[in-house]
Amino acid sequence: MQSESPAILSPTQSDLLSRFKHVRATTEKLCAPLQTEDYVVQPVVDVSPPKWHIGHTTWFFEEFVLDGNLPGYERFDPQYAYLFNSYYEGVGKRVVRTDRGNMTRPSVEEVYQYRAYVDQQLECYLQEHSLPAEVAEKLELGLQHEQQHQELLLYDIKFILGGNPLFPPYRARKAAKEAAQPVGELQFLPMEEGVYEIGWGADTQSADAQSADAQSADAQSADAQSADAQSADAQSADGPGRRGFCFDNELGRHKVYLQAYAIADRLVTNGEWLEFMEAGGYRYFRHWMQEGWQWVQEQGIQAPYHWHRIDGQWQRFSLHGLEPVDLQEPVTHISFYEADAYAKWRGLRLPTEQEWEAACRKHSPAPPAYANFQDSELFEPAVRSSGNRQFWGDVWEWTGSAYRPYPYFSEAPGPVGEYNGKFMINQMVLRGGSCATPRDHIRASYRNFFHPQLRWLFSGLRLAKQL
Amino acid sequence: MQSESPAILSPTQSDLLSRFKHVRATTEKLCAPLQTEDYVVQPVVDVSPPKWHIGHTTWFFEEFVLDGNLPGYERFDPQYAYLFNSYYEGVGKRVVRTDRGNMTRPSVEEVYQYRAYVDQQLECYLQEHSLPAEVAEKLELGLQHEQQHQELLLYDIKFILGGNPLFPPYRARKAAKEAAQPVGELQFLPMEEGVYEIGWGADTQSADAQSADAQSADAQSADAQSADAQSADAQSADGPGRRGFCFDNELGRHKVYLQAYAIADRLVTNGEWLEFMEAGGYRYFRHWMQEGWQWVQEQGIQAPYHWHRIDGQWQRFSLHGLEPVDLQEPVTHISFYEADAYAKWRGLRLPTEQEWEAACRKHSPAPPAYANFQDSELFEPAVRSSGNRQFWGDVWEWTGSAYRPYPYFSEAPGPVGEYNGKFMINQMVLRGGSCATPRDHIRASYRNFFHPQLRWLFSGLRLAKQL
Amino acid sequence: MQSESPAILSPTQSDLLSRFKHVRATTEKLCAPLQTEDYVVQPVVDVSPPKWHIGHTTWFFEEFVLDGNLPGYERFDPQYAYLFNSYYEGVGKRVVRTDRGNMTRPSVEEVYQYRAYVDQQLECYLQEHSLPAEVAEKLELGLQHEQQHQELLLYDIKFILGGNPLFPPYRARKAAKEAAQPVGELQFLPMEEGVYEIGWGADTQSADAQSADAQSADAQSADAQSADAQSADAQSADGPGRRGFCFDNELGRHKVYLQAYAIADRLVTNGEWLEFMEAGGYRYFRHWMQEGWQWVQEQGIQAPYHWHRIDGQWQRFSLHGLEPVDLQEPVTHISFYEADAYAKWRGLRLPTEQEWEAACRKHSPAPPAYANFQDSELFEPAVRSSGNRQFWGDVWEWTGSAYRPYPYFSEAPGPVGEYNGKFMINQMVLRGGSCATPRDHIRASYRNFFHPQLRWLFSGLRLAKQL
Amino acid sequence: MQSESPAILSPTQSDLLSRFKHVRATTEKLCAPLQTEDYVVQPVVDVSPPKWHIGHTTWFFEEFVLDGNLPGYERFDPQYAYLFNSYYEGVGKRVVRTDRGNMTRPSVEEVYQYRAYVDQQLECYLQEHSLPAEVAEKLELGLQHEQQHQELLLYDIKFILGGNPLFPPYRARKAAKEAAQPVGELQFLPMEEGVYEIGWGADTQSADAQSADAQSADAQSADAQSADAQSADAQSADGPGRRGFCFDNELGRHKVYLQAYAIADRLVTNGEWLEFMEAGGYRYFRHWMQEGWQWVQEQGIQAPYHWHRIDGQWQRFSLHGLEPVDLQEPVTHISFYEADAYAKWRGLRLPTEQEWEAACRKHSPAPPAYANFQDSELFEPAVRSSGNRQFWGDVWEWTGSAYRPYPYFSEAPGPVGEYNGKFMINQMVLRGGSCATPRDHIRASYRNFFHPQLRWLFSGLRLAKQL
Repeated sequence: MQSESPAILSPTQSDLLSRFKHVRATTEKLCAPLQTEDYVVQPVVDVSPPKWHIGHTTWFFEEFVLDGNLPGYERFDPQYAYLFNSYYEGVGKRVVRTDRGNMTRPSVEEVYQYRAYVDQQLECYLQEHSLPAEVAEKLELGLQHEQQHQELLLYDIKFILGGNPLFPPYRARKAAKEAAQPVGELQFLPMEEGVYEIGWGADTQSADAQSADAQSADAQSADAQSADAQSADAQSADGPGRRGFCFDNELGRHKVYLQAYAIADRLVTNGEWLEFMEAGGYRYFRHWMQEGWQWVQEQGIQAPYHWHRIDGQWQRFSLHGLEPVDLQEPVTHISFYEADAYAKWRGLRLPTEQEWEAACRKHSPAPPAYANFQDSELFEPAVRSSGNRQFWGDVWEWTGSAYRPYPYFSEAPGPVGEYNGKFMINQMVLRGGSCATPRDHIRASYRNFFHPQLRWLFSGLRLAKQL
Repeated sequence: MQSESPAILSPTQSDLLSRFKHVRATTEKLCAPLQTEDYVVQPVVDVSPPKWHIGHTTWFFEEFVLDGNLPGYERFDPQYAYLFNSYYEGVGKRVVRTDRGNMTRPSVEEVYQYRAYVDQQLECYLQEHSLPAEVAEKLELGLQHEQQHQELLLYDIKFILGGNPLFPPYRARKAAKEAAQPVGELQFLPMEEGVYEIGWGADTQSADAQSADAQSADAQSADAQSADAQSADAQSADGPGRRGFCFDNELGRHKVYLQAYAIADRLVTNGEWLEFMEAGGYRYFRHWMQEGWQWVQEQGIQAPYHWHRIDGQWQRFSLHGLEPVDLQEPVTHISFYEADAYAKWRGLRLPTEQEWEAACRKHSPAPPAYANFQDSELFEPAVRSSGNRQFWGDVWEWTGSAYRPYPYFSEAPGPVGEYNGKFMINQMVLRGGSCATPRDHIRASYRNFFHPQLRWLFSGLRLAKQL
Repeated sequence: MQSESPAILSPTQSDLLSRFKHVRATTEKLCAPLQTEDYVVQPVVDVSPPKWHIGHTTWFFEEFVLDGNLPGYERFDPQYAYLFNSYYEGVGKRVVRTDRGNMTRPSVEEVYQYRAYVDQQLECYLQEHSLPAEVAEKLELGLQHEQQHQELLLYDIKFILGGNPLFPPYRARKAAKEAAQPVGELQFLPMEEGVYEIGWGADTQSADAQSADAQSADAQSADAQSADAQSADAQSADGPGRRGFCFDNELGRHKVYLQAYAIADRLVTNGEWLEFMEAGGYRYFRHWMQEGWQWVQEQGIQAPYHWHRIDGQWQRFSLHGLEPVDLQEPVTHISFYEADAYAKWRGLRLPTEQEWEAACRKHSPAPPAYANFQDSELFEPAVRSSGNRQFWGDVWEWTGSAYRPYPYFSEAPGPVGEYNGKFMINQMVLRGGSCATPRDHIRASYRNFFHPQLRWLFSGLRLAKQL
Repeated sequence: MQSESPAILSPTQSDLLSRFKHVRATTEKLCAPLQTEDYVVQPVVDVSPPKWHIGHTTWFFEEFVLDGNLPGYERFDPQYAYLFNSYYEGVGKRVVRTDRGNMTRPSVEEVYQYRAYVDQQLECYLQEHSLPAEVAEKLELGLQHEQQHQELLLYDIKFILGGNPLFPPYRARKAAKEAAQPVGELQFLPMEEGVYEIGWGADTQSADAQSADAQSADAQSADAQSADAQSADAQSADGPGRRGFCFDNELGRHKVYLQAYAIADRLVTNGEWLEFMEAGGYRYFRHWMQEGWQWVQEQGIQAPYHWHRIDGQWQRFSLHGLEPVDLQEPVTHISFYEADAYAKWRGLRLPTEQEWEAACRKHSPAPPAYANFQDSELFEPAVRSSGNRQFWGDVWEWTGSAYRPYPYFSEAPGPVGEYNGKFMINQMVLRGGSCATPRDHIRASYRNFFHPQLRWLFSGLRLAKQL
């Protein structure tokens, strides 16, 4: 089964160079609205200072690509490895994670100098040398890694600004918000019982299930086929992800057996969430995991993160500043505990990650052009457009699956092997990307993961049920 | 698929009565070696005072069976519900869990009086009334519940005595320990790719996989078929578990697709564990989950729980007192983190719970007569006998599966619905029962679960690998 | 100034023997009402299991008196030193303090066997050998030490029983409670400015202040002179304390200069405390130390410890069980923070320990016969009798003085030097003894001390003000 | 006794204006070497971000001087009160202390704009209105308050930079360090038994003690009289403190009786501290407070704060960067626990605050010209010059006195009453000022106070003994 070719195909170096420039420039563009002070702080352990992201993504290229590969390369400052290593035990000591927000030096300016130095060295390397395949793979990994940090940067910036009593906006909306259209009733997309292929490189479905399913291709999915598919990259079975790249945790294409189920055709909205709140959802234990209920009580949780009750109205902090809660928008900044309790309150459940992936491959195999990713520069979830099933973008969807290895999973040798595997405990999988995800970073097989109590990310939910 | 009949068949009342007497008497027999003082303390939050177990299992019958059902029933003491409720939010307030070990009253004697009162009332109820089906089901649940607490009692007693610098034995060995036979090399039992049925009431395998597998039925499994099967309850596809009972978390027989794999034919031994320790297993980060490594360092973990380095030798506290570590015995009192790190160090992995169940159904569908359960009164894992695959008894086997609901899982209405579902987060599944499990309490579909850092239970591991 | 003779005079051995028997028997009598279970638990770190007190006071004699002194003495069990050492770093390792409540063995019966063994050995020692002076001093110290533990035993028993939802009484009142007489208005006893002597062996006052004071000896103190003095031990300038003994922290008789002040003629009552509560005393920050206010808010403090609001009424748990709060009784189980806030709310303050001692030496130099000590076997504070200034017994009085060394303080050499000195930080001094203090254990110079947030002791307060 | 005139005399407004400008400019000068990033962080709860100090000292003037007093005054931003209130419960809610380091907005630039606005308004107020006496007093309090924050700023800057692995200097030394002269043997200055006056406005000694002392004025103190006194402000019995100002905690001039004692003529040096370290001072429990010993073990304390063992040598981080430890300099950055343990190890003790004050008034009634204060811009303790008794400047001296109110202490009405009184628990008094203290801010009666485990301040010690 484990027959896919090596995960990281070697693109041409010129492709790599142009991608490198683009990704690095994007990070800097995302930081452009920040003031120097915003770069420095770490309000909670999960949030890293933007300055640290800038340095850490740079260090990744220095440590894994340049050092020892580019002949004559000298590190910008040997102490920076200590400052900007995140969690790689294999490459030495590092500033403890809780201390990142205490490091006022190097200054923001110096970190950007470090960044410029590494960029210039790496561009030379790409232009003047032929990179061995394994170095090119590390470089590709570095780019994917930096895209992940772009997303974290947006979460962290939102957390830093949103925790400030002045509620400063990150930047103004590019266009005035239009009056929201009423989102229609939730529909369920049925999925047939059978064997499905899961993981990077998977076909949509195994033969049997596919043929069965073909017969049930009904009017309900017709608009999806016209709408969602219009921008589909026909070359890629895995959506818009860079052809050839996936993380190790997606590898091991394999079969799963799914019992018949149905999955909602859109995300849960703020309006639906308010019904839960008004029905006492946060005050009654019955729908909660025991650890979730304890968390709700200890933390005094009463609403999604970034929601504030001001003058009798629910407002939410967005990257555009405080705004009234929009009932049509997908709910976001909720924990797994909240998503799970909500689903139970509705008498439903979350889909597993396999159910999500199979349904996505069937109903929205590639993101439609209007999907709301980082590239849209909206930076908040959008109201569902007509026909949009929202499998892609807007908010990461909590699934009911714990983050555990796929059957053929094995860690890469060396420090990069610490990338994913060592986190496969006590976390839950999320799928689909968000308004902070770069469009070319996501795929149907992409597995994101967070602890069940976290909610500073753009997280939301889609409902499912057994048939 | 979800077609099984109601989980709890109504046995005759006379059966129930004799089972009730047996289970209740067994609990008291397990407590017989205790001194009054041993009943009272709670050294850590996970360990409950034996007195509390005695009262809590009694309260369960009073709360869910007698109260409101037996005409004219009066509670022994209305305040006991507050004292002996464990975690049922639905039936009122309770002593916070961390305070159980501070309750010196009611005294041990008074708790036994309470127990006798409820026993006498319940026996009357059974003898003089016809129990409605749903009450009989609650009674059966109460018996299963008490058997679970018997097992916890043994863990807790071992923890309480083993944390005392005097290392007092719980009771002497019934027979002198025999010289251990060398346990042979680890063999792997191959399992074919295909669809398997999982959950209570499942057949061993689906038709296709079964036929494929039939062809590969090799010599290796022959001894298992002769040895393990000799005491098999031919009536029960689920092993020796009481026909008709399972917990809600086992329900929803369903199909899974397993890629080809192999599973070890026995448990990992103390001798093999010592090799890991001597190779620096506890000092090198590479094989550990990130949270496991943090746990190892913060807690200073260097060996399984209950192991002590005394005069240059490893001894382990057993319920028979301090004894030298026996290299042939299965290792026990290890956390999931340790089991997982050990497997990675060997270049292998833990089986998933589905893999475990499928292999168990094939290679040892029912526990052999010599399997080491609570009924053996050894109360410690035993060295593997010839042919014994140790799927049953000795130690609970950590699997690689997070404890999450099966596809058709739904919680029972009312307070008993809190039994399993609300714990399905941040815990890992264990399979197979232990030397502290009553033989008639276990089945192939039985799902035990604990947090990954816990190790006061009789936990161990079996290795697996992909083929 | 430091001219007093050695603190511990050598009494005759026969005196010592009879005192030894009396003190040891008293401890056992105090424990007589306990059930075995009550002996074992440690609900909070400050509360030790009664079993531990029984063993620890015994160990003190074994460690410091018998071992190495009584020829041929063999320890009852060498491991007991590890189990029953409290905090003496100088005599080896010990069970960590928070683990005392997890030690179910040795059993209560075995600890009493240990106790009997040491008693028998020590009685032999006293009867058959001539004790060197320094050994006799350690023996005397051991008796004083055991009397301190008698008092702690009563606090701890009250805490253990009072934290149980069944509120079991320790024992019934010896006599029915009489209707309380209204306690009269608070009067203030004036004290002249001048130099006073403080510490063990101090005269009441220096010459100058005394003569000045003599002139102001007014009618107000007359009843005290008649009432309080009637049972005064004329031989002892330091009250009823055993002639010749004091703790090292009382040594160094020295002069202090007190500005003119006045001190209340009785303790603050429950009725007065209720006024504070009803005026919002626990809800308004203004009268609280900053750390006290934080403590009130974090712990949700709303009333003295052991008070419970039941059916709209304030009840308090006493060693006789739950009883309505008696408005005439001295308030007790309050922290320093509460005492201090109350005094400020009244526009007054607590006396310093020097002010307390000077006033006590003048107005009530020795405890009156009717003072309420442990010997009364009431075990709760009593309503003030006519003329009783309550300097002695009932409740320990928080003073405004931090527990710091007197000018000539020096620690004894050897492990007993750890007795007092190392605790002289972050604690406040209390004076006067309580209903749990043995009458022959207290003196005017006696310095008790606790952390400012503690309140499981019999603590109360007396008001003072500057003149 | 409480006869002194109101603590804060009204200086002329022109004096106030020039002082206002000077103090405000000094704060900004102290911050000049900072980079923007350095202004933002709060590595531990006791350290505030420099930006917060800049805003908080400004808010103090806005809140207590301008608002409600200057006609027509409008706050710069009403939300700033919430951001920059420190601990005044009486003036509304505030950012919790642990969150100060998470506030990236207002930016440093905006906080300086706020500062400029308040400065400009306050200067107008002083130039164009006649300030009521109580407002002028608040203004004076604001200036003293800002001087205290100047000192804290230097501690906090040192902590922030010293915790960075790059060890960036705050600024270079103004002059190269001279080779240290050997500091001579410690001498003890004897002090006669008797009554002394303590507190603001106190004469050196009471008549009796003074005359006695006059006879013992020996050669030993002669150099002090010539050296230390040369710059003495003959007008002020309280040293160089602004005539007329003291904090409420110094008020209540009163008499104390001191037994004969002697006090060291200089501070303990780094060289003497190294002897303690090399003798195992941090590894042996005997000289430590019990809570201090626990702190040493839990925190792994092995040397003063800011000391680092690098390549086998002790270096210390100073505001000039990393430097070798200078054996002649006074030791600094030690906790009370360490100071107390050191003194006991030497068989000596710390002076009480009263002993310190009496000795200072006698031997060095006013700071000599060469005393090392903030004004010297050395910002680190200096080696003792000939004749300098170091009562003034260099390092705050831990005394053996707990911080408690003086006899006549009363809190001011209104929010400023929260200034000192509510901290009088669990803290120890320090005396004499440091290299970070403005020269015109200190006096003989000045009482500084910190918790016994803190050591990020410039703290040191002077030894004493009983005679």
